[in-house]
Amino acid sequence: MFTGMIAFPLTPLREDSIDEDAYRRIISRLAAAGVDAIGALGSTGSYAYLDREERRQVAIATVEEAGEVPAIVGIGATRTSHVQALAEDAQEAGADAVLLAPVSYQALTGDDVFALYERVTAGLSVPLVVYDNPGTTHFTFSTDLYARIAALPNVAAIKIPPPPADEVAGRIATIRAAVPEHIRIGISGDNRAAAAMNAGADSWFSVIGGTLPQPALEITRAALAGDAALAEVESARLQPLWDLFGAHGSYRVTAALAEHLGLVPQRSLPHPILGLGDADRARLGDVIDELDLGTRIR
Amino acid sequence: MFTGMIAFPLTPLREDSIDEDAYRRIISRLAAAGVDAIGALGSTGSYAYLDREERRQVAIATVEEAGEVPAIVGIGATRTSHVQALAEDAQEAGADAVLLAPVSYQALTGDDVFALYERVTAGLSVPLVVYDNPGTTHFTFSTDLYARIAALPNVAAIKIPPPPADEVAGRIATIRAAVPEHIRIGISGDNRAAAAMNAGADSWFSVIGGTLPQPALEITRAALAGDAALAEVESARLQPLWDLFGAHGSYRVTAALAEHLGLVPQRSLPHPILGLGDADRARLGDVIDELDLGTRIR
Repeated sequence: MFTGMIAFPLTPLREDSIDEDAYRRIISRLAAAGVDAIGALGSTGSYAYLDREERRQVAIATVEEAGEVPAIVGIGATRTSHVQALAEDAQEAGADAVLLAPVSYQALTGDDVFALYERVTAGLSVPLVVYDNPGTTHFTFSTDLYARIAALPNVAAIKIPPPPADEVAGRIATIRAAVPEHIRIGISGDNRAAAAMNAGADSWFSVIGGTLPQPALEITRAALAGDAALAEVESARLQPLWDLFGAHGSYRVTAALAEHLGLVPQRSLPHPILGLGDADRARLGDVIDELDLGTRIR
Repeated sequence: MFTGMIAFPLTPLREDSIDEDAYRRIISRLAAAGVDAIGALGSTGSYAYLDREERRQVAIATVEEAGEVPAIVGIGATRTSHVQALAEDAQEAGADAVLLAPVSYQALTGDDVFALYERVTAGLSVPLVVYDNPGTTHFTFSTDLYARIAALPNVAAIKIPPPPADEVAGRIATIRAAVPEHIRIGISGDNRAAAAMNAGADSWFSVIGGTLPQPALEITRAALAGDAALAEVESARLQPLWDLFGAHGSYRVTAALAEHLGLVPQRSLPHPILGLGDADRARLGDVIDELDLGTRIR
């Protein structure tokens, strides 16, 4: 469940409510495409904007539509007791694992973050993925903190943010040496995924894979089969998309992509996130045509 | 209501629930001390950790205990519709004004933030304070964005973060020139408050003033009466406290101070915020004795 391509679906809104029909179609399409797991309610899935009832609704829909594909559900929140309640809900919904980022408002210390994972993992009956996403949580993990948390019960994997291009292999080796052998290491940052899996990462927590699973699966399967060159070529082919991710963030670009392809309603992100402006949507439309992405939604 | 010392009270928790008795004592003490307004559910008041029902409870308690002192209530959240619901609750509770920070998870654009304020202010029946707190929201306002938002209906004041020491006067003059004349400008960052009010800020949104109103009122009254030297002297006297704020953040230090003085329960902050460690609490205890702060809680 923590090896391969873990797809991060969007959670589309329609007039400020979850569009459950559209969401269920996204999940069943991911399951049919053969993704290795579904990472529901990640950053791409807007978890930080949804209330508890909406998150329960999404967790249930994910498990129901995922079928045999493992469902990993995000449980992040600013307060430990809220995280614990979300973990309960996810487990009751039948989630196979949970994903936890140290969401912050006041800056967190390393001891705060350790205390969060210690308290939450103690009450789990499913495995947990440590979700390290400094761009949104504004918390930076040290390798030592990874090691302390990885030694807690029920911790199964760590999703790391993309290291600088020339440090990918070294960073993965450093973390691998610091954590217990059973801990799987996943990468996020779609443009760096091929390099990271070629350098030994076990999995790719993929934003684009939650909307266009095929290209992400091709990259992942090439890398994990040892065909590093093919993985790099397939990733490089998507460079115009990675450039848009770099300019506007993968969240807004992927939502606009899904809106363009009719997979989700228009203006599917939670207000006040306006999403891409018209000129950037036109550029994205060009990239979609150029890369022939419209025909790859299957 | 937007001139003078606006006190930011803590919202103490006891075993993960609001300690409403302790909270009511804090508010009635602030009202008795003659603060110019109470800024409930600011960052110091842990608003980002509380659920809607808790925030309604705190808003009601604030209005009831504040008496004639204006109650300004924080309504920040990541999603616009949640902010609107919190604004409704605050207004129903009888709040005299609301305070809104652009709380983020995904980084916000200037247009996102304008859209947030535009939508929220359109539905208000009380004035709004723009709450600019980049250390927690990770959003940086431009002067131009201040000006656009300040022109919206119901916007009454802007609370700015502390500029660098040598830029305080220039910054306030720049903002003053950019916004309509009726907009009040308040400062946060307790160690820079005397300088800012001496340079023309209308108010101090004060962390320490929510727990120890007297010293904050002395600084404010000196500055607003034109006695700049006295304001500076009174502020400089508290330098050991400002140094602790600088080292650990005003949130954790003020909570530890209130715990030390018995105003709130031990471990009053929401988990996973552990608060000051033992050595830092001992240092704080020394500062409390040195500055004779224990006798100033009246």
